[in-house]
Parts: sequence; structure tokens; C-alpha cells
Amino acid sequence: MKTIGVADTTFARFDMASAAIDELERTGTGFRVERYTVPGVKDLPVACKLLIEERGCDIVIALGMPGPMEKDRMCAHEASTGLIRAQLMTNRHIIEVFVHADEAPDDGGLAALAEGRAREHAVNAYDLLFRPDRLRRDAGTGQRQGFPDEGPIGRR
Amino acid sequence: MKTIGVADTTFARFDMASAAIDELERTGTGFRVERYTVPGVKDLPVACKLLIEERGCDIVIALGMPGPMEKDRMCAHEASTGLIRAQLMTNRHIIEVFVHADEAPDDGGLAALAEGRAREHAVNAYDLLFRPDRLRRDAGTGQRQGFPDEGPIGRR
Amino acid sequence: MKTIGVADTTFARFDMASAAIDELERTGTGFRVERYTVPGVKDLPVACKLLIEERGCDIVIALGMPGPMEKDRMCAHEASTGLIRAQLMTNRHIIEVFVHADEAPDDGGLAALAEGRAREHAVNAYDLLFRPDRLRRDAGTGQRQGFPDEGPIGRR
Amino acid sequence: MKTIGVADTTFARFDMASAAIDELERTGTGFRVERYTVPGVKDLPVACKLLIEERGCDIVIALGMPGPMEKDRMCAHEASTGLIRAQLMTNRHIIEVFVHADEAPDDGGLAALAEGRAREHAVNAYDLLFRPDRLRRDAGTGQRQGFPDEGPIGRR
Amino acid sequence: MKTIGVADTTFARFDMASAAIDELERTGTGFRVERYTVPGVKDLPVACKLLIEERGCDIVIALGMPGPMEKDRMCAHEASTGLIRAQLMTNRHIIEVFVHADEAPDDGGLAALAEGRAREHAVNAYDLLFRPDRLRRDAGTGQRQGFPDEGPIGRR
Repeated sequence: MKTIGVADTTFARFDMASAAIDELERTGTGFRVERYTVPGVKDLPVACKLLIEERGCDIVIALGMPGPMEKDRMCAHEASTGLIRAQLMTNRHIIEVFVHADEAPDDGGLAALAEGRAREHAVNAYDLLFRPDRLRRDAGTGQRQGFPDEGPIGRR
Repeated sequence: MKTIGVADTTFARFDMASAAIDELERTGTGFRVERYTVPGVKDLPVACKLLIEERGCDIVIALGMPGPMEKDRMCAHEASTGLIRAQLMTNRHIIEVFVHADEAPDDGGLAALAEGRAREHAVNAYDLLFRPDRLRRDAGTGQRQGFPDEGPIGRR
Repeated sequence: MKTIGVADTTFARFDMASAAIDELERTGTGFRVERYTVPGVKDLPVACKLLIEERGCDIVIALGMPGPMEKDRMCAHEASTGLIRAQLMTNRHIIEVFVHADEAPDDGGLAALAEGRAREHAVNAYDLLFRPDRLRRDAGTGQRQGFPDEGPIGRR
Repeated sequence: MKTIGVADTTFARFDMASAAIDELERTGTGFRVERYTVPGVKDLPVACKLLIEERGCDIVIALGMPGPMEKDRMCAHEASTGLIRAQLMTNRHIIEVFVHADEAPDDGGLAALAEGRAREHAVNAYDLLFRPDRLRRDAGTGQRQGFPDEGPIGRR
Repeated sequence: MKTIGVADTTFARFDMASAAIDELERTGTGFRVERYTVPGVKDLPVACKLLIEERGCDIVIALGMPGPMEKDRMCAHEASTGLIRAQLMTNRHIIEVFVHADEAPDDGGLAALAEGRAREHAVNAYDLLFRPDRLRRDAGTGQRQGFPDEGPIGRR
């Protein structure tokens, strides 16, 4: 039995964690979920590290929705840097699922994007843990999460 | 009995720490407060780490008010990066409460914003320590601190 | 017998890993290859660290193709920073092979650049491991990977 | 007896260290000074760490004067990030005293600013070590170093 | 007998390492040199750490010539950040000697700048190791490497 951590924020405007957990359950079995909700994306790195070190998670999905301003982009950058550092300190993957306000034209599109990306990255987390061969098979094929895949480009 | 650290600066133009402590006391009991004042936001990361490692704090609230210039934004970025690193080194939350000069039209607005944000994040710190279910309940609902909440967006 | 790690992504639109492995095999012997595919470039740092610490790699080639937007450039920056940190934590080289969408005029050019850079950096990784004198010989000579070498400039 | 480290650079165009040491001596007793001069600001982080770990400093003042170009601003950012990391690795304060060329209209103004900031931050370092209550008293009052204080803003 | 590490790249278009080593030998005795050549500046941090930890270097000179594009500036920033981190992990100085393409009007000027900066920083490394009093004497006097010194500014 593996443990998958799901960390999210009260700042986000969409319940990406529920979408990710729902998708995990549709995808397979053999795991339980540990949840952790924090105020904003800058609180995610230590939350993910605690999920790994104190609640036994084998992998974590970190979900967030940074705001639209320049200042918010910097917050996201700081959070991402921290998430990578947390992974290097624990030797565990933390799949970052951030959706930026300027990635969709309106609230409906943003909600759809948040849900789609959360679901597709939930499968990525599942694959890293249970079936890495599926990722290997898709290496270099232009996979996207929440948007249509771009597909591979020529030459080989 | 838990210990909540409150770190702030002499650079800030509003006494955010007093507002945060007042709000903590209105919110609940079961904790004592440790204070630490430093010159500027770049001095906060090690102050917060000392509050955790040498004064036994279970969580810290780090309050600052970076200046309005490009150089100041970089200071805030460096401080934020350090606060995240300090959290990862200690496995404790440090709630960053920064207010930027360009977030309000005048001094009065800035003071109100600083007070509001300090108070709302004090409750977040209390919740992380004593009642994480409240944060879980608000996951993905667009909570803001010092400004009106944005609320959730559709689809689910 | 040495072990060379090859880490790549499903996000990339060209199978750079296969090109790198093919070039390694053309270049010499005395090694085996360990592969690891992750979703995107921000997942590479911990994958490379795992290749070194849990799968015994002596060196790793990290291949990725960041997207064209400003946000993607920041992702690449975060990934690069993490790859350098992973190297400092393990005392092993991780050769970063990133190709940016704006480095070629069209998909065909991008594929050719990705293949050429992967192949030339595969030789660099081989040289670091087996024949560092070749790198020493080329010190300060303006070597490029995937583009024509720039060559040395005068004075000596 | 405490030890205060003073680290500075040959790159700076003003002898900020002498100003800082003079001000320390005017401010109080109970300490001795350890000096360390390096070429530029990027050499300061490890110099400060060495002052703390190998020369027994309880606190360090790090003085520098980054150049005026974009490239110099990046150097200052890298140095600042390193200074914060050094503090987190040692649990000691390092007070950064940087003066940027664009902060004053001419050389005379820059020299006055460098001297004033070095002196005021020397007192901050002294206070952190010997009389933290003075910093607490000034929390949130808009203190500045080298420029006139901005003072507190309303509401409380 | 001390050991001075000299790390450089095949990417650079000038053999800065030879200039640095020649200058070291003109400057004094009591040391031997360890060389390490890597492909690019982002490979320098771990190379310098290996020079210190596995080849016994007491100090390292890290030489590089980042390219002219925005992407190259980011590479240089990542490398610099890594060099500072490597210093903090080893408590040894690594003198960064980077020359940027836009610092000289043409190839001849760039070569002259690269040689001059490498030579002047070689002396800085020698001084840090053998005669720190020379650096102390020049504190705050506006020293430059590869360009004319700026000299001190008034007031004291």
C-alpha cells in the first residue's frame, strides 16, 4: 500500500484537490490519500515535505492557482523553487500543478483548465509510482496537461 | 501549550505584529507568543529559524513591508526564498505576511491593508496549528488576506 | 563498468534520450545506461538525484525542451537551479541538455537542433567520465552543441 | 566578550568598514572586531560564514557597493541570496549593508550615503547582539539607514 | 604547499585558464595547480566542489564566458548561484571570473578583457590564500579586474 499526498491552498479558486483525488481513484488502486490544505502556494513546500517525512507519503501532488499580477508570478516562482528543493531533500517526487490566471480567457475556462490539469497530473503521479513504463513510452511526445497534447516533431 | 513566533521589522511603517498578536488572542487559547524584531525583511529568515530552533516556536508569523522600488521587490524576493528555505530546514510553517507599498493608494489604505492582512494570516497560523480542518473546508475557495475574498469559480 | 543516467520528459516534442543513447553507444564502451522519464523539466532534478543515489549512476544526462512562453522560461530556470543543486548534493555531474522553442525557426529545425545537441552533449558526458583530457584540450575554444562551434578569439 | 565580524570588498569605492567599526566603538563595549576583505560582493557569503565558523563571530556586518549596471544588480541579488543562506546554515545574523550606485546623484552623495548606512546598520548589529529591546521598541516605525526615517503610518 | 584549483569551460572563446595559471606563477610560489575543464558555466559549480573535496584544493578560480543572449545571462546567474552555494558547502573561496560578450566592442577587446580579468583575479586568489593583508589594504578603493580601477570616492 502506497501513500499519495495531496496538498492544496485556500487561495485557489477551484477545488483542484478533489479533482485530482477523484482521478486517482478512477486510475487504479493500491494507495491511500493524505490531504493537507495551506493558505497559499508559498506554504506548499513545507507542507509537501511534512506529508513525505511525517505522514509517510511516497509522492505528493501540489496544487495551486497563483494570482494574475507580477507579484503573484514571483510567489509562484518562489514556491516552485521550494518544491524542487523539498524533492531534493526527500528523494521523493512532488508533482507541481499550478494554473495561472492568464492561461484562460475567463473563469469558466480557468476552472476547466484547473480541473483538466489536476486530473492529468494525478495520472502522472500514479504512473511515476506504479507504472513508470507508461511515461517512458511517451518520452519526447509533447504531452500537455489541461491543454491538447502538442505531439512529437519530425526527424526520427 | 504551543508557542507561536511573531517576527517583524523596524523598516515596516505599521506595527503589524501587535495586530497579529491581538488577533491571535481573540481567536483562541493554548499558546504563548515569542517576539523577535529585526531591521528589515532580509533579516527575517534567520530570525524565524532562531525562533523555531532556539525559542521552541511551533509556527512563526513573519511580518514585513517591503519598499516601493524595484530594488525593494528584489529584497522581498530574497526574503521570501529564505523563509521557504527556513521552513524546509525546520519542518515548521512560517506564514509570510508582506504588504507592498503599491498595494494601496495611500498611507491610510496601506495601514488598513497591513492590519487586515496581519489579522487574517494570524488566524491562518492559528488554524494550521490548532484546527487544520478549517483550512481544508476552505480549500479552493479563493480566500484572500486584507482584501475581499475572490470566491470559487464554477464547474464543480 | 560505469553507469550513465539518461533522464527525459514526456513534455519534450523530440525523443532526445534515444539520440543521446545512440551517440553514447557510437562513442565508446565500458558503461551501461539507466533511463528515467518524468512529465516535465521541473521533475528532472529529483529524477537525476534518484538515478545517482538509488540506481548508481556516475553521471547523468538531463534532457528537456521548455515551452516558448515567459512562464516556460521560468520553469527552465527553476529546473536548471535544481539540477545544479542536485549536483552539489551528490558530487556528480548532471549534463543539462535543454532546447528552447525559440532557438530554431520551425519544427524541423528544432528537431535537428534537439538531436544535434543531445548527441554532442552525450559525447561531453562520455568525456567527463572516461577521457577528461579531450575537454582540457578544447578549453577556451568556443565549442557549441547543436550549432556550429564559434571557435577561439585572438590574443594568445 | 562577543565578536563582531566586519566583511567588506576592494570593489567598493568607500571604506564602509572603517565607518562601521568607528560607529560600533562609539556605541558600546563588550565586543572585539574581526575583519575580512574580499574582492567583490559575491565573495562575501563564504567570508561571513568563515568569520562565524572559524573566527568565532557572533554576528557579521557585510558591506558592499554593487556597480550600476543590470549585471551588477544580478551580482548583488546572488550575493544577498548567499548571505541569507549563510545565516540559515549558521543560525547567526549577517547584516547586509549594500549601497547601489543609483541611490545618490553623485560621488559625494554616494559616499555620504555609504557612510551613513554603514553607521546606522552598525548600531543595528550592536542592538541585535546586546539590546534587542531597542529594535522591538522601533518595530513598525519606518526606520531607514542612510536616508531619513519614513516614520509610521496611521490607524493605530 | 597549497593547492589552487582552476576550472574552465570548452564554451569560452579564450583560454582564460592559461592566463590565470601564468599569472599565478608570476605572482608567487608555495602552491600547485589542479585543472578541471567542463563544457559550460553551469557545469562549473560541481567541478569546483570536486576540486575542493576530492582533489584537495584550498581555493578555486572558476573561469567562464557566458554567451550574449538573455538565455545566456540566465545561465550565468544559475552558475553564479551554484558557485556561491558550493563555497558555503565547503567553506572555501571560489573566485568567479566571468566575462560577458557585451562587455567589449569586438573579439579583440573581449580577448584582452578576458585575459586581463583572469590575470587580476588570479592575483586576488593568491592574495586570499597567502597575503590577505593586501586585500585589506585595498578595502573600499574601487578595484576593478580587466578594466581600470574606479578608485575611491570622497568624504573620508
